[in-house]
Amino acid sequence: MKPGECSLGNRLPVGGNGNKFEFPPQQGEDPWKECMDTAVQLALRAGQVVKKALTEEKRVSTKTSAVDLVTETDHLVEDLIISALREKFPSHRFIGEESTSAGSKCVLTDCPTWIIDPIDGTCNFVHRFPPVAVSIGFAVNRELEFGVIYHCTNGNMYTGRKGHGAFCNKERLRVTQEKAIRNALILTEIGPKRDPETLKLFLGNMEKLLTFQAHGIRVIGSATLALCLVASGAADAYYQYGLHCWDLAAATVIIREAGGTVIDTSGGPLDLMSCRVVAAGTMELAQSIAQELQTIDYGRDDN
Amino acid sequence: MKPGECSLGNRLPVGGNGNKFEFPPQQGEDPWKECMDTAVQLALRAGQVVKKALTEEKRVSTKTSAVDLVTETDHLVEDLIISALREKFPSHRFIGEESTSAGSKCVLTDCPTWIIDPIDGTCNFVHRFPPVAVSIGFAVNRELEFGVIYHCTNGNMYTGRKGHGAFCNKERLRVTQEKAIRNALILTEIGPKRDPETLKLFLGNMEKLLTFQAHGIRVIGSATLALCLVASGAADAYYQYGLHCWDLAAATVIIREAGGTVIDTSGGPLDLMSCRVVAAGTMELAQSIAQELQTIDYGRDDN
Repeated sequence: MKPGECSLGNRLPVGGNGNKFEFPPQQGEDPWKECMDTAVQLALRAGQVVKKALTEEKRVSTKTSAVDLVTETDHLVEDLIISALREKFPSHRFIGEESTSAGSKCVLTDCPTWIIDPIDGTCNFVHRFPPVAVSIGFAVNRELEFGVIYHCTNGNMYTGRKGHGAFCNKERLRVTQEKAIRNALILTEIGPKRDPETLKLFLGNMEKLLTFQAHGIRVIGSATLALCLVASGAADAYYQYGLHCWDLAAATVIIREAGGTVIDTSGGPLDLMSCRVVAAGTMELAQSIAQELQTIDYGRDDN
Repeated sequence: MKPGECSLGNRLPVGGNGNKFEFPPQQGEDPWKECMDTAVQLALRAGQVVKKALTEEKRVSTKTSAVDLVTETDHLVEDLIISALREKFPSHRFIGEESTSAGSKCVLTDCPTWIIDPIDGTCNFVHRFPPVAVSIGFAVNRELEFGVIYHCTNGNMYTGRKGHGAFCNKERLRVTQEKAIRNALILTEIGPKRDPETLKLFLGNMEKLLTFQAHGIRVIGSATLALCLVASGAADAYYQYGLHCWDLAAATVIIREAGGTVIDTSGGPLDLMSCRVVAAGTMELAQSIAQELQTIDYGRDDN
């Protein structure tokens, strides 16, 4: 795609200027530096809103099931982020968790696209369980360029820029070199579906990995922060069925830039819209886990 | 028991003075204030050792199974804590995770007894997964008097003194008032046994709670810190089979002083040596969970 032009036009209502997008000013050699700097600032600002909300009364609604929660703060934070970005980058596109729930299309085109989870770990947020994050990913030509994840309750800022490494605050992140399930510390999340068949598959997958003597399985309630822990080398792998592109976009850049691997549960390349993922420090471990998993069908984000 | 006297004598080698113990000086109305202050200082000191060790090379051994880990740091920190306490309180008794593994008896008598987990979350420690804690509990006449738990990687100091409340740093802790499994956020741990029968029971328990539409289950790899999260109101309940008295002693005081309940998985009173527990903000929730659980036999600590 030529700089300054969005090849697919701009069919989503972004309040922008047709199929042209504001090309960020050339600063050094990184055309997306301004976007990434803006993402960091917005994640911080959003994080402050989330932190403040944690001290206030809870008002909770449900989405796809009785355990799929959403709060006023999810909506507020998504609006805050998207409206600020639209003003600065009017031709860009946006995929946000709450806009998608409200009916916006969730399609990744070649256009510069922001993929946003205003509060990852909404159930944690509702309960005041600490892992709660703001996640902002950015893709151009359907390729992830950078990811910014802010851990709202401990202030850690995770960033990854394609080709330039991944960091937590100023510390460089590196994945582990563990190759086998045996001895690995593995993270997962339960997902919103709780019908007997889904639970059977979910628990069956856990059983397999524990039978192979994984050192442990951890469930922290935030997919993006779990993926950041893999990027940090604090865990060896993560897998999940039922997560979304906004859980994955930012974290995928961060893990890859920390030296890790993010693939589909089939063992093939990651499909951001497929609602399933295996991430690990090494391809060997990612493939070993993928091989053991039974598929849980959560549909696709773009369907 | 009369102050200054240990009714059962002192059969464990504490380097002390027969069946007399150093009675702490009367400061205000709390006879155990000096003990508790010492515990806080030692937990901090031990926490610094753990933090430093987290930056160094790992040397790991296994205990009861391939996934039951112990490190040099576990031994080092337990020695540090117990030797300092023995010097100051020579007639007191000690139950420590690593001394017990090495063959020391694990019996609670009427004597003032320190119950110590030098590193709770050893598997986390080995992997550099953040929740790692030092836990120091203290009982007299078989009753828990105070508990001190230091979260080594984020610096939170949890304390509970019987009759005087529970705190994280200087903030008072309060449990939630959730009464039903539906909507509750529940914590558990996997435990070291991984035989097919144990895994079936463990996963079956998880399945039941998820079927009852618990909002979520979290597994963070540290029983003591999970219990502190219940005390903080960040989660509604915790249950586990396969934990030990050193995981429970300090945390039990903290949860109770935060207004919560700690019981046996049978629904009866807590038995510190029974290797099983349900803790919750309310007795209703604790009993509801206890009622659903299938028993996993881990034996007893004092057997």
